[in-house]
Amino acid sequence: MFEAGVFQARRLQLVASLREGIVLLPGHVESPMNYADNIYPFRQDSTFLYYSGISRAELYLIIDVDQNQTTVFGKNPTIEDVIWTGGQPDLQELQERSGADHAKDIQELPTVVARAITQKRSVHFLPPYRAETARQLEVLLPEQSINQHSQALACAVIAQRSVKEPRELAEIEAALEITGKMYHDAMRFTEDGKFEREVAGLVEGIAIAGGGRLAYPCILTKHGQVLHNHHYHRRLQSGDLVVQDSGAATPSGYASDITRTYPVQGTFSSRQRDIYQAVLHALEDGISSIRPGRPFRDVHLTAARTLTDRLQQIGLMRGDLDDSVDSGAHALFFPHGLGHQMGLDVHDMENLGEDLVGYDGQIRRSNQFGLKSLRFGKAPDPGYVLTVEPGCYFIGPLIDQWRVEKRHQAFINYDRLEAWRNFGGVRIEDNIVVMPKGCRVLGPPIPKTIPDVEAVCSG
Amino acid sequence: MFEAGVFQARRLQLVASLREGIVLLPGHVESPMNYADNIYPFRQDSTFLYYSGISRAELYLIIDVDQNQTTVFGKNPTIEDVIWTGGQPDLQELQERSGADHAKDIQELPTVVARAITQKRSVHFLPPYRAETARQLEVLLPEQSINQHSQALACAVIAQRSVKEPRELAEIEAALEITGKMYHDAMRFTEDGKFEREVAGLVEGIAIAGGGRLAYPCILTKHGQVLHNHHYHRRLQSGDLVVQDSGAATPSGYASDITRTYPVQGTFSSRQRDIYQAVLHALEDGISSIRPGRPFRDVHLTAARTLTDRLQQIGLMRGDLDDSVDSGAHALFFPHGLGHQMGLDVHDMENLGEDLVGYDGQIRRSNQFGLKSLRFGKAPDPGYVLTVEPGCYFIGPLIDQWRVEKRHQAFINYDRLEAWRNFGGVRIEDNIVVMPKGCRVLGPPIPKTIPDVEAVCSG
Repeated sequence: MFEAGVFQARRLQLVASLREGIVLLPGHVESPMNYADNIYPFRQDSTFLYYSGISRAELYLIIDVDQNQTTVFGKNPTIEDVIWTGGQPDLQELQERSGADHAKDIQELPTVVARAITQKRSVHFLPPYRAETARQLEVLLPEQSINQHSQALACAVIAQRSVKEPRELAEIEAALEITGKMYHDAMRFTEDGKFEREVAGLVEGIAIAGGGRLAYPCILTKHGQVLHNHHYHRRLQSGDLVVQDSGAATPSGYASDITRTYPVQGTFSSRQRDIYQAVLHALEDGISSIRPGRPFRDVHLTAARTLTDRLQQIGLMRGDLDDSVDSGAHALFFPHGLGHQMGLDVHDMENLGEDLVGYDGQIRRSNQFGLKSLRFGKAPDPGYVLTVEPGCYFIGPLIDQWRVEKRHQAFINYDRLEAWRNFGGVRIEDNIVVMPKGCRVLGPPIPKTIPDVEAVCSG
Repeated sequence: MFEAGVFQARRLQLVASLREGIVLLPGHVESPMNYADNIYPFRQDSTFLYYSGISRAELYLIIDVDQNQTTVFGKNPTIEDVIWTGGQPDLQELQERSGADHAKDIQELPTVVARAITQKRSVHFLPPYRAETARQLEVLLPEQSINQHSQALACAVIAQRSVKEPRELAEIEAALEITGKMYHDAMRFTEDGKFEREVAGLVEGIAIAGGGRLAYPCILTKHGQVLHNHHYHRRLQSGDLVVQDSGAATPSGYASDITRTYPVQGTFSSRQRDIYQAVLHALEDGISSIRPGRPFRDVHLTAARTLTDRLQQIGLMRGDLDDSVDSGAHALFFPHGLGHQMGLDVHDMENLGEDLVGYDGQIRRSNQFGLKSLRFGKAPDPGYVLTVEPGCYFIGPLIDQWRVEKRHQAFINYDRLEAWRNFGGVRIEDNIVVMPKGCRVLGPPIPKTIPDVEAVCSG
């Protein structure tokens, strides 16, 4: 974790962007699984983490905008705490780690908030996304609806967190180092007869061995056409393609988000090569068209155009290329967005409002099927970290629905498609940082070309 | 998962034990990590699972006690659901799996609950332990406090779930098979220079490869004297003892809960052997004294007596053995309880009330330090599954506190203890089922004697 001065500087920048009032940041409490004391691995709220650096349950941060004073609220550990959970940091240590001006017992928090309300100062808080946080806010702010969260605070946080500091890029690249091992080992380990869950266990174990955990639930499936498939019960067989979408988080909380698709038997079939190359070209064309000021929506459409072109060559699509892309016909194969911001969250800051994070006055979210799922459409600035993740899927129920409705039949060769309906899916994903001119792919090389993937899988 | 008739029979038994009204069981919703859509691995509420067999989010079960009719409430999947999360079960499939009499859209639930309230029938519900569940109950039961949960329902569920069916024992033993591998591989893998997190990753990966997950967060630490230590950042060195407390859960949700303590360098030192043998004998004496009708509090005291006797031989304790055990002096070394029930939850049914589950009119919870932490004190019946987990720890801050307060100085040799304060801790834990005469240790043998542990660690 970074030194205290980093958090002081971040808070100073936040204070400068708000006019008045206090910022109330509730940290997370523990999340129960099947009873109060059996808890999921603790995950701090990312904005709390960004401004305090402290990954501990049951804390609050108050930043007084007018005074530029920060107070961390918590509890000193008791002897029982020492016996059961070891040496927890006391209030003084919490203050030192976060560089806060004060540390107070959490019992004093309601008074501090109530005083601000009495003084008619703004109490800035972010929209809660956990029920427990909503309850805490309801108790602290009895007359304020939790829907009245601060748009000014959300916008200030988004502006600040969107541009990654060099030390944040280093953290993301550290996460990607662990992620590289997750792919290398999984590709080697995968073989005919193994169950998906065996590979998923290997992958998650590597993330934990790296000192953090997975940044999000691992997708590891031979049914890659199910976009968020979190089941691992199937047995892998020669001929199957595995879609693995996974990323480690560092101990300090920074995410990575990589996808690779690889053949169980070590080599791609002819059809698999065709689709894989189509997706890989879409990825490469997407990445090489990223630059500051270019709307990411247009990058998405560049990738869609490459994919459409390739699917036309294979014979699954047809018609005028520009018209086809405009119509969104490719979304039958590529129904999701090309990417999103990434940082402390794998979908960075999604809790602050997906449209606030990904769109602006220039670029508004489309309602076209496929494009409407693009989480980030606006033009990025240097320092933005984004995922680039085109895919090509053969989704039986969607094909059937579109065919019956005769949707985009000028652009889709439904007859040809029948022989492909059990293909599954391919997705390939990298993480990039936007540079003054273009972008840079983050992290170590993770096998991506067909020869490289086959070399590791057969190794 | 079991066939539908199992759940029908369980519900029939529940209905027979309640007088009237409806039973309202809210299933779990997803638990967000750092934004609404980035979720922890789903864990269903165990009572919901016990009576329905369905591990899916956003369901409710209503059991009409007077009519003996069960309705599952959920939603049919949309085409968007199919694209993103694959073929989810529809209402008909949910009904079939659970053997429910009806399946209805969740929108109909408020009307059904409101009708029961209007008819002045009891609405039995259990105490919520997740904030989201509390909110759901508040919405459904506007005039009823969520504190007015049904004691009758809690007692009926506890009576039923405490006696494990043979098929449940088979599930627990399946969990223990996976757990055996977690220990065998961890002992082999552990060596000087490795980090705790590397071993913890291996262990958690094996649980996932087994098709379920960990039943609770793994404890894997060289600082075993911290009872619930969930940090894995330390580097293991020759001379260290590793305390590993971990258990796999099966895909159907049944837990296991095993602890072993093993030496990083493959062999125990002389001091480590002494403490290890003391704990092992306490375990063996505890297990051999379990039988139906004997209060488990007395089993706890049997184990405490053995430990005290051994610590007297080592020279760390002294004085009359009976008086020492009565005084609770051993709790300096063994400050927690000997065990708890285990089943679908690792602390089975703890959410229904720890005292309701573990105590009764005959045996009430002690307030003596150590004994007060015993979760289960009453006499078990055949079919009860319990953990037996004595430990011996050297907890610096606790030793200092007791010494200053001159606590139990007739029984504790504080001078001798000084040379032991950095020893760490030892815990050994098995899972047993109470039999008509005595008990049976569940699962495969997991190395436990010093020669067996050393053989695997050095292998």
